[in-house]
Amino acid sequence: MTIDTPSAEMRLLLRTLAEFVREELLPLERPFLYHDFDTLMPILEDKRRLAQSLGLWLPQISAEHGGMGLSLYEHGLVSEVLGRTPLGHYALNCQAPDAGNMEVLIEHGTPEQKERFLLPLLAGEVRSCFSMTEPENAGSNPTRLSTAAVKDGDAYVITGHKWFTTGAEGAAFAIVMAVTDPAAARHQRASMIIVPTDTPGFHIVENTSVMGERGRGWASHAEIRYDDCRVPQSNRLGAEGMGFVIAQQRLGPGRIHHCMRWIGICERAFDLMCRQAVLREVAPGRALAEMGPVQNWVAESRAEIDAARLLVLRAAQRIDAEGAYAARDDIALIKFHVAGVLQAVLDRAIQVHGALGMTDETPLAFWYRHERAARIYDGPDEVHKWSVAKRILGRYAL
Amino acid sequence: MTIDTPSAEMRLLLRTLAEFVREELLPLERPFLYHDFDTLMPILEDKRRLAQSLGLWLPQISAEHGGMGLSLYEHGLVSEVLGRTPLGHYALNCQAPDAGNMEVLIEHGTPEQKERFLLPLLAGEVRSCFSMTEPENAGSNPTRLSTAAVKDGDAYVITGHKWFTTGAEGAAFAIVMAVTDPAAARHQRASMIIVPTDTPGFHIVENTSVMGERGRGWASHAEIRYDDCRVPQSNRLGAEGMGFVIAQQRLGPGRIHHCMRWIGICERAFDLMCRQAVLREVAPGRALAEMGPVQNWVAESRAEIDAARLLVLRAAQRIDAEGAYAARDDIALIKFHVAGVLQAVLDRAIQVHGALGMTDETPLAFWYRHERAARIYDGPDEVHKWSVAKRILGRYAL
Amino acid sequence: MTIDTPSAEMRLLLRTLAEFVREELLPLERPFLYHDFDTLMPILEDKRRLAQSLGLWLPQISAEHGGMGLSLYEHGLVSEVLGRTPLGHYALNCQAPDAGNMEVLIEHGTPEQKERFLLPLLAGEVRSCFSMTEPENAGSNPTRLSTAAVKDGDAYVITGHKWFTTGAEGAAFAIVMAVTDPAAARHQRASMIIVPTDTPGFHIVENTSVMGERGRGWASHAEIRYDDCRVPQSNRLGAEGMGFVIAQQRLGPGRIHHCMRWIGICERAFDLMCRQAVLREVAPGRALAEMGPVQNWVAESRAEIDAARLLVLRAAQRIDAEGAYAARDDIALIKFHVAGVLQAVLDRAIQVHGALGMTDETPLAFWYRHERAARIYDGPDEVHKWSVAKRILGRYAL
Amino acid sequence: MTIDTPSAEMRLLLRTLAEFVREELLPLERPFLYHDFDTLMPILEDKRRLAQSLGLWLPQISAEHGGMGLSLYEHGLVSEVLGRTPLGHYALNCQAPDAGNMEVLIEHGTPEQKERFLLPLLAGEVRSCFSMTEPENAGSNPTRLSTAAVKDGDAYVITGHKWFTTGAEGAAFAIVMAVTDPAAARHQRASMIIVPTDTPGFHIVENTSVMGERGRGWASHAEIRYDDCRVPQSNRLGAEGMGFVIAQQRLGPGRIHHCMRWIGICERAFDLMCRQAVLREVAPGRALAEMGPVQNWVAESRAEIDAARLLVLRAAQRIDAEGAYAARDDIALIKFHVAGVLQAVLDRAIQVHGALGMTDETPLAFWYRHERAARIYDGPDEVHKWSVAKRILGRYAL
Repeated sequence: MTIDTPSAEMRLLLRTLAEFVREELLPLERPFLYHDFDTLMPILEDKRRLAQSLGLWLPQISAEHGGMGLSLYEHGLVSEVLGRTPLGHYALNCQAPDAGNMEVLIEHGTPEQKERFLLPLLAGEVRSCFSMTEPENAGSNPTRLSTAAVKDGDAYVITGHKWFTTGAEGAAFAIVMAVTDPAAARHQRASMIIVPTDTPGFHIVENTSVMGERGRGWASHAEIRYDDCRVPQSNRLGAEGMGFVIAQQRLGPGRIHHCMRWIGICERAFDLMCRQAVLREVAPGRALAEMGPVQNWVAESRAEIDAARLLVLRAAQRIDAEGAYAARDDIALIKFHVAGVLQAVLDRAIQVHGALGMTDETPLAFWYRHERAARIYDGPDEVHKWSVAKRILGRYAL
Repeated sequence: MTIDTPSAEMRLLLRTLAEFVREELLPLERPFLYHDFDTLMPILEDKRRLAQSLGLWLPQISAEHGGMGLSLYEHGLVSEVLGRTPLGHYALNCQAPDAGNMEVLIEHGTPEQKERFLLPLLAGEVRSCFSMTEPENAGSNPTRLSTAAVKDGDAYVITGHKWFTTGAEGAAFAIVMAVTDPAAARHQRASMIIVPTDTPGFHIVENTSVMGERGRGWASHAEIRYDDCRVPQSNRLGAEGMGFVIAQQRLGPGRIHHCMRWIGICERAFDLMCRQAVLREVAPGRALAEMGPVQNWVAESRAEIDAARLLVLRAAQRIDAEGAYAARDDIALIKFHVAGVLQAVLDRAIQVHGALGMTDETPLAFWYRHERAARIYDGPDEVHKWSVAKRILGRYAL
Repeated sequence: MTIDTPSAEMRLLLRTLAEFVREELLPLERPFLYHDFDTLMPILEDKRRLAQSLGLWLPQISAEHGGMGLSLYEHGLVSEVLGRTPLGHYALNCQAPDAGNMEVLIEHGTPEQKERFLLPLLAGEVRSCFSMTEPENAGSNPTRLSTAAVKDGDAYVITGHKWFTTGAEGAAFAIVMAVTDPAAARHQRASMIIVPTDTPGFHIVENTSVMGERGRGWASHAEIRYDDCRVPQSNRLGAEGMGFVIAQQRLGPGRIHHCMRWIGICERAFDLMCRQAVLREVAPGRALAEMGPVQNWVAESRAEIDAARLLVLRAAQRIDAEGAYAARDDIALIKFHVAGVLQAVLDRAIQVHGALGMTDETPLAFWYRHERAARIYDGPDEVHKWSVAKRILGRYAL
Repeated sequence: MTIDTPSAEMRLLLRTLAEFVREELLPLERPFLYHDFDTLMPILEDKRRLAQSLGLWLPQISAEHGGMGLSLYEHGLVSEVLGRTPLGHYALNCQAPDAGNMEVLIEHGTPEQKERFLLPLLAGEVRSCFSMTEPENAGSNPTRLSTAAVKDGDAYVITGHKWFTTGAEGAAFAIVMAVTDPAAARHQRASMIIVPTDTPGFHIVENTSVMGERGRGWASHAEIRYDDCRVPQSNRLGAEGMGFVIAQQRLGPGRIHHCMRWIGICERAFDLMCRQAVLREVAPGRALAEMGPVQNWVAESRAEIDAARLLVLRAAQRIDAEGAYAARDDIALIKFHVAGVLQAVLDRAIQVHGALGMTDETPLAFWYRHERAARIYDGPDEVHKWSVAKRILGRYAL
C-alpha cells in the first residue's frame, strides 16, 4: 500500500463515504451556511443515526470502544472525504474537540470517568468541549496559563477565564486546562480537569463573534468564566501536572485529522472552481476556463494540493509506524504548509466565482473566513516554523 | 505641492477630520461590528449632523452643490482618513454608491431630476442605490446585461434581475442599468434609468448573505427583481444608449475614492498590528514585536502601503490635471495593485492578533471578509490586468 | 514499499552512491565551478572508470544493455543523490542528453544504428547531442521547426539552424529533429536523424554564452548550422514522421530524471544553508540560525522540498505502473511545481550565505544561474500549466 | 514640481541623456556582455570624453567641484536613465564606488588629500576602490571588523583581509575601513584610511569569481590582503574613529543612486519584455503578447515599477529637504522593496524571452546574476527590515 494507494477495503469504504457525503450531507449545507440551525439540527441528527447504522461512526476510535478501528493514515483519508463539507465530521461523531476528548478519556480516563463521560460521548448522546485558550495569554506559548485549580479538601476549586472553547454551548462537560501547581517546572504546572457544565460557577459569557458570526452549538466558540467551580479531584485526567503532556499527545493525531480535513476542503474548492470556470461565460461561447489566469490557478492548485496531500499522508504513516515523537518534524511541517495551500486554493476558487464567491451560496465564503484560523489555532504557523527549524538547525550544530 | 505633501490648508482639514474619526466614529465601531444597527443608527445620524455642522460634508462634491469643492487628489486624502473606519464615508455622506450617484445626477441630470432626486441625496435625507450587476451575467464583461427597459408610451417598462445592489434596503431610488436598444452596438445598448423604490414591481428579494451576513440598510447588498417596473422616460439619465459611457465616467474618480479608502484601511490595520505587537507578550518581558516574522511584516507592510499610496495619489493628480481618459492606465493599475496590498496587510495584521484577530473585537475581521471583494467589484483584477497590458503591449506593436 | 521507503537493496545502493558523491565528486567541484576543465576532465574520467568498476553505471538503462536495470522510481532516487553535485550524472554516464539518446536508440534504433552509435555511448567512449531547439521558433510550440531534411537518392540533405544543442562540442554524433514532410499533419512532419559530427556541413557556430559562460564539452550549449549535411536515410530513427512521437516518449522518464535531480540540488542547497546558518555569527555568540527569517526559510524549504519530492516519486511510480500516458498530468505538474521550489530554495540558500553566496566557492551560484532554465527548457512552465489545466477542465465540460 | 514631474530644464537633460545612452552606449553592450574588455575599453573611454564634452559628467557632484550640481532627486532621475545599461554610470564617472569615494573626499578630505586623490578622480584619470567587507565577518553587522591599523610613528600599519572590493584592479587607491582603536565604543572603533595601491603590502589576491565571472577593472570585485601596509596618518579621512559615521553618511545618497539605477534596469527589462512579447509568435499570427500569463506580468510589473519608483523619488526629495537622518526609514524601506521588484521584473522578462533570456544576447541574464546581490550588499534585506521595524515599533512602545 503506497502512500496514496489505500487497500481495496479502504477504497470501498471511501467510496461509500463519498456517496454518503454527496447524497446525505451536501443538501444540508444551505441551512448551515444560512445559520438556520433550527431547520438543520433535527435533520442532521437523523443523518448521524443513519451514519451510525451504516457503520460510519467514530472512525478515529478503536473497535473495542465502538469505533471503526482505523489507523491514523486511514482516518486521514476518511477525514479528507468528510472535509468536503462543514457537516462531515459532525455526522460521524469525529468533530473537534469531541474527537480529541474521546481519545484523551480513553487513554487517561479512570473507569468511572469513562463510564460517566466517555460512553455518552461515544454514543453521540452528548457533546463536550476543551477549554484551554485564554484571552489574556498568547496561545503561541501554551505554558502561560492564568486559570487556577486550587485544592480544597478532595475538590479542585477552579477560577479562570477562557475563550475559543469550541462547542461549549450545549456541551455536557468541559475538559479544562488549569494550573494545579504554579511552583512546578514550566511544563508540569497544569492538569486537565473534567468540569460538567452544570457545575455552579461555570458561566458561558457569550459565544464569541468570530468573523461576524456567533454560531450555535457545536459550531460556536464560547468565552467562559470559571468562578470558583468546585469539582472532585477524581475529575482530574491522569496524574497531577500531566496537562501539557496529554495536550501534546492529543496534537499529533489531531494534526492529521485537521490537515486531511483541509485537503478535503481544498478538493471541494478545486471542484467548485473548475465547475464554475467551465460554466461561466465571459462572452458568448467563451468560458472562464479559457482564460490564462484561471488555467494557471487550476494547474497550480492541482500541484499544490497533490503535493500537500502526500506530505500529510506520509506524516500519518510515520506516526502509525514510529509514533508521534519520531514524526514530530513532519507534524510541524504539515501544519503550516497545508494551511498555506488551503488559503491559496480558497482564494483562487472565490476569485473564479466573482461576486458569487462572496455570497453564502457556496461553502467557499464560510471556509474563507473560518479557516483563516487554520494558520492560528494549535499554535500559529510562525511557532511551528520556529520549532521545526530549531530542531533541524540543532542537528547541524557541532 | 508634491504628491504626498498637501497644502497647509489641506493638512489642517485632514487633522480635523482625523480627530473627528478618532473621537466621534471609532467609539461606534462596536455596535457596527456586532450588527447592532438599532443602537448604531440614531447615534450615527447625530454624528452626520455634527459633521455637516463642522463643514465636513460631501467632500467629493463641488461647492456650488453644497460640497467641500475638493479636487480628486484632495478628496483622495480625505477618503484615506475616512477609510480608517467602516463608518467614515457614511458619516460625511460620501459613501458608495450615493457618492457616485450624486456625481452622475450632477453631470447628467435634468433640472427636474436634480430637484427631485439629487437635492435630498445631497442633504443626506435619503439614500439611493445603483443596480447594475446581474447574477446571470459575468460582471467582468459589463456589456452583457439581461435587464430590459422597453418603451411603452412615454414610459419605460423595466424587467430584470439584479444583485449586489448596495444599500437598496431603505433607499429612496435606484439608478438601474438596463438595455434600451438590444440591436445597438455593444457599448450603446444600455441606459441608466432612475427607479423610485416605491414603484410597483420593484421587489427586493432579499439582502444577499455575503460572507455570512445579510447586513442592514446602507451596509447591505440586495437581490432585486424588476417586474414590469413602469417609470417615465424622463427618468432616463442622459441620452439613450449612454449607459456605459456614464458608467465609465463614474469609475475613474470612484476608483480613487476606493483605493484611498483601502489605503486608509491599510493604515488602520498597520496601526493595530504595531500596537498589538508591542502589547502582546509571548513570554515574560518578550513582546511579539521582537519576533523576526512580525518585524518582517511591519517593514514590508510599511513599504508596500507607502508605495501603493503614492501610486494612487499620482493617478489622482493625473486625473485632476489631464482627465480620466489620459489616466486610464493609472486607474487600471491602482485597482489591482492596491487591492493586493490591502489583502496582504490585513492578513498580516490578523496573524499578529492571533485568535483575537478572528473575533469582531477589532475591525480587521470585518475588512478581511468584506474587502475580499476589492479584487472582484468594479471588474476583477484579471480584467484590469488584461486591459492595461493590452494597451501597453499595443504601443509596442508596429 | 511506500513512496519514500525504498527497498533495503535500494537503500544500500543509495548509501553507496551518496558516499561516492561525497568522497569522489565533491572534491572536484572547485575546478568545475572555476571553469578549469583541463584540470577537471582527466580526473573526472578516472572517476567515471571507478564508478563503472563499482557497478555504478547507466542507472537508467536495462541490465541487458549493461545498465543497472532500475525502475524509473529507483532511477529517480539515484538521480536525486547524483543531483547533489553538477558532476553527478556525468560520472555515471546518465547525463542529459546522452541518457535520452541512449533510450531512443534502444527503443527505435536499427541493429546497425545500435552497433555504431549506441554501444560506444553506453561504454562512455563517446558523447552525443540532441539538436531540436531553433533560435527562430518558440520552443513552447515544438511543432514549429524550420530545419528541413530533403530526400536526395538514398540520403537526407539537412539544412537548418539550431541552438541550445547541449554537449555538441566534442560529441560524436547529433540526433537532429528535422522536417521530413512539410505537407504532413502538424505532429507528423518531423523525424529524428542521426548526424555524425564529422559530416561535411555540420558546423558549430559557437558555444552560446549562457548566463555569462560558454562552458566546455558536455557542459556547453552549441549553436549549430546544418549546411547541406548529407546522411544516409538509414540514419533516421523510427518511421518517417515519428519525430514528435519519439520526442514525447523521451520526455516522460526524462522529466523524472530532471525533477529528482532538482530535488537533489534542493537537498544540497538546504544542507549548505543550514551549515552556514549555524557557522556564521552576526554578533559574538549569535549565529544566523537564531534569526527569525532564516528559521522561516529553513522550515518552509523543508516542507516544500519534502512535498515536491513525494509528488515526483508518485509520478515515477505511476509511470512505472501505468505508463507515461496515464501519468501525463503528473508529468506536467511536477515540471513547474518542482522548478518553482528549486528556485525558491536556491534563492534562500544564497541569501543566507550573503556575499559568499554570490561567489563560486559554493555551487549555489552555478545552480542559481543555470537552473533558471529549469522553468524554460522542455517547455516553459506556462505551457505545462496551460496543457494540464486544459485536460482537467475538459473533464468538467459536459 | 511633483514627485514624478521634474522641471522643464531637467526633462531636457533627461532626454539628452536618454539619447546618449541609446545612441552611444547600447551599441557597446555586446562586448561588455561577452567580456571583451580589450575591444570595449578604448571605445568606452572615448564615450566618457564625449560625455564630458557634452557636460554629462559627475552628475552627483556639486558645480564647484566640476559636477552637474544636481539635487539628490535630480541625480536619482539621471541614475535611472543611466541604469538602462550596465555601462551608463561609468560613462558619466558616477559609478560605484568612485562616486561615493568622491563624496567622502569632498566632505572629509584635507586640502592635500583632495589635491592628490580627489582631483584625478573627478577628472576620470584614475579609479579608486572602497575596502570594507571582510570574508571572515558578516557584512550584516558592519561593526565587526578584523582589519587593524596600528600606529607606528606618524604612520598607520594596516593588516587585514578584505573582499568584494569593487574595482580594485587598476585602481589608484583604496579607501580602507580599519580598526584604529579596538578598545573604543563599538561604533567608534574604525577609521577610513587612504591606501595607494602601489603601497608595499597591498596585495590583490584575485578578482573573486562572482556568479561564474571574475570580471575586469571597474567591473570586478577583488580579494585583497593588506600585509603591513604602511601609510602616513595624514591619509586618514576625518577624525580617528569616524569610520562608521562617514560610512553611514555615504549610504543615504548612495541608496538613492542604487535604487534609481535598479528602477532604470526595471524599465529596460520591461521594455525588452514587451518587445519580445509582441515579436515572438507561438503560433502563426499569435504572439506571446496574447497569452494571459504574459499579460499579467506586464500589468503587474508596470504597477510595481511605478509604485517603487515613486517611493524612491519621495525618499530623495525628503533627503534633499530634511536630510538623510530624517529620511532614514525611507532609506531602509526602498532598499529591500526596490530590490524585490527588480528581481521579480528581471525574472519575468527572462521567462518571456525563453531560451534567449538565458543567453547574453540581452543584458537580462547579466542583471539576473549580478543584481542578485542587490538584496545582499549594503546590508541584506533582512537587516533593513529589522532595523526599520524596530524604529517603527519603538514609536508604539509606551
